[in-house]
Amino acid sequence: MATMHDVANLAGVSLSTVSYALTGVRPVSEKTRARIQAAMDQLGYQRNAIARSLASRRTHILAMLFPAIERGLSGTALEFVTSAAETARERGYHLVLWPVNDQEGHETRELLQQGLADGALVMEVRLDDPRVALLHEVGTPFTLIGRTEDPDTLHYADIDFETTVRDALDHLTALGHRDIALLSHSRASLDAGYGPTVRVGAAFERYMTERGLSVVVRHCDESADAGRIATAGLAASHPRVTALMTMNDAATFGAMAELLERGKRIPDDMSVLSIVSSPRVGALSHPRLTTMSAPGTELGRLGVTSLIAQIEGTGATALHTLIPCRLDVQSTTGPARLPMNHTP
Amino acid sequence: MATMHDVANLAGVSLSTVSYALTGVRPVSEKTRARIQAAMDQLGYQRNAIARSLASRRTHILAMLFPAIERGLSGTALEFVTSAAETARERGYHLVLWPVNDQEGHETRELLQQGLADGALVMEVRLDDPRVALLHEVGTPFTLIGRTEDPDTLHYADIDFETTVRDALDHLTALGHRDIALLSHSRASLDAGYGPTVRVGAAFERYMTERGLSVVVRHCDESADAGRIATAGLAASHPRVTALMTMNDAATFGAMAELLERGKRIPDDMSVLSIVSSPRVGALSHPRLTTMSAPGTELGRLGVTSLIAQIEGTGATALHTLIPCRLDVQSTTGPARLPMNHTP
Repeated sequence: MATMHDVANLAGVSLSTVSYALTGVRPVSEKTRARIQAAMDQLGYQRNAIARSLASRRTHILAMLFPAIERGLSGTALEFVTSAAETARERGYHLVLWPVNDQEGHETRELLQQGLADGALVMEVRLDDPRVALLHEVGTPFTLIGRTEDPDTLHYADIDFETTVRDALDHLTALGHRDIALLSHSRASLDAGYGPTVRVGAAFERYMTERGLSVVVRHCDESADAGRIATAGLAASHPRVTALMTMNDAATFGAMAELLERGKRIPDDMSVLSIVSSPRVGALSHPRLTTMSAPGTELGRLGVTSLIAQIEGTGATALHTLIPCRLDVQSTTGPARLPMNHTP
Repeated sequence: MATMHDVANLAGVSLSTVSYALTGVRPVSEKTRARIQAAMDQLGYQRNAIARSLASRRTHILAMLFPAIERGLSGTALEFVTSAAETARERGYHLVLWPVNDQEGHETRELLQQGLADGALVMEVRLDDPRVALLHEVGTPFTLIGRTEDPDTLHYADIDFETTVRDALDHLTALGHRDIALLSHSRASLDAGYGPTVRVGAAFERYMTERGLSVVVRHCDESADAGRIATAGLAASHPRVTALMTMNDAATFGAMAELLERGKRIPDDMSVLSIVSSPRVGALSHPRLTTMSAPGTELGRLGVTSLIAQIEGTGATALHTLIPCRLDVQSTTGPARLPMNHTP
């Protein structure tokens, strides 16, 4: 296939001049433009892959639908993006991120209908996620990183929240904790049916009840200040709590700051265990945070591999994979001592 | 213009069937496919914007070239992405992120040459950045968020590092600090000529020398553990240091953890001032971190506005804007006391 270099050589102009003529970024005389057009016609040059895509219907672009990028990329999401981008590259695809957060789906639809992506990785999945119907309608192959309420007919890879919560509670109860509170994502994320918020809440309620322990849950926004406020409220309403299980990185740091400001020792007065996090995030705090790290790397690889198999029609079986978080015990969990506001 | 709904109605099939026929995601019988094709021809339906783009040469997509997304989105970058995405949306454009980090530029070139983006925002700019020549060659309009060594002929918006460093040192020296160390980005980023690392290092050296103070600089990777190690090394080699000026969010948290582990009080034994950061990041620590916050929101808006003006040919003047970081005094900076390893 003729290149832009060939066009420039034949027309007797520089490569930049060809480029300016094609894009209109800088003015090019009519005479030069005509010479370039003649060279393009003679060589059968097509400006770019748009024309090729029209023929092949392939762009080799995978779009990651990432609604809440403004809330930040957690350690998990970072590992996920890195691993997904690498896997795509190995297979000759490009991963691009679409930071689209439109409830009605107008912008997502517009991007999908442009046909610019061969497939989509759907992040931040809700139990009833309108993007599933949209993707079916537009006909774009997709893999969920997460799950809807009834995902059996779809391709997905997700965290095994049941096992994760059970393992977290095993760790804390083995240390003697009985009064354990869950500090979770925002109330808005619960109301929206965001998968992790709903599933972790349900698993926490079930396993605590099974053990005959009371269920204390606080929702808070993804910020340190929200974590401080929630922790202050918890100290007032539930002074006997000796362990926090958290799923909200920024709020976890706020919670620890609030405890330290109140003169509490971590973990002597209060243990803190952060799930769906990572040792990398845990290393940011003093004392170093005990985490259960999300399988971001595995999810990224699985998701992209499944998506490419769908696009290329080589997928024999559907992807239905759940992976639990891994416990990394550091310095914020320890034996339960006296309830929160008692002094010896 | 005919829609996919019109095609489905005329062909007497469901919308999904039309979509499957067009994408090949699921099998559609030859007979049905022929009926759909006939309806499309009759209505003059064009499958998607690829065809329209070929005519108009516009995709209304702005690509953000983001090499180091795997290192995480700092508070600054998050504000920037959010603001850029919003500004684009207001103007009828879509912002997409390209997490491409290829030294040779192969993948960047391939993406650009597909003509899928009308313009590019270039992040993580180096003093001698190969992407500038590449963008010129391909003919894609672009705006730098950052600056090359000699950016006069380019469009850019960047942090005013000179003013930022001067203001930071004014704050610290007014508190009596004379022994101030800079904890910066990695040595690799310095060697690569990454703008912020080079410019902050140069400004720090100049302003410290002008004040007759000694220049102590440590480079470390973007992780808490690297910050811990650098701080331990600094305590051994420069025990008189009473203030850290940092530009590296993760390392700053590691530095504070290391100080606390050594029994140092912040700010009584050591002040910490984090530049090119944000109050949101500062809220994660205890005590709450004094920051100089980067103008992410302003840079995002300016960058996208300038880029769209170039694309649409309405840009009267080039964008050459520098904005300093804003000081937000919190609890980690205070009066200089005794040198680091002296006890009263």
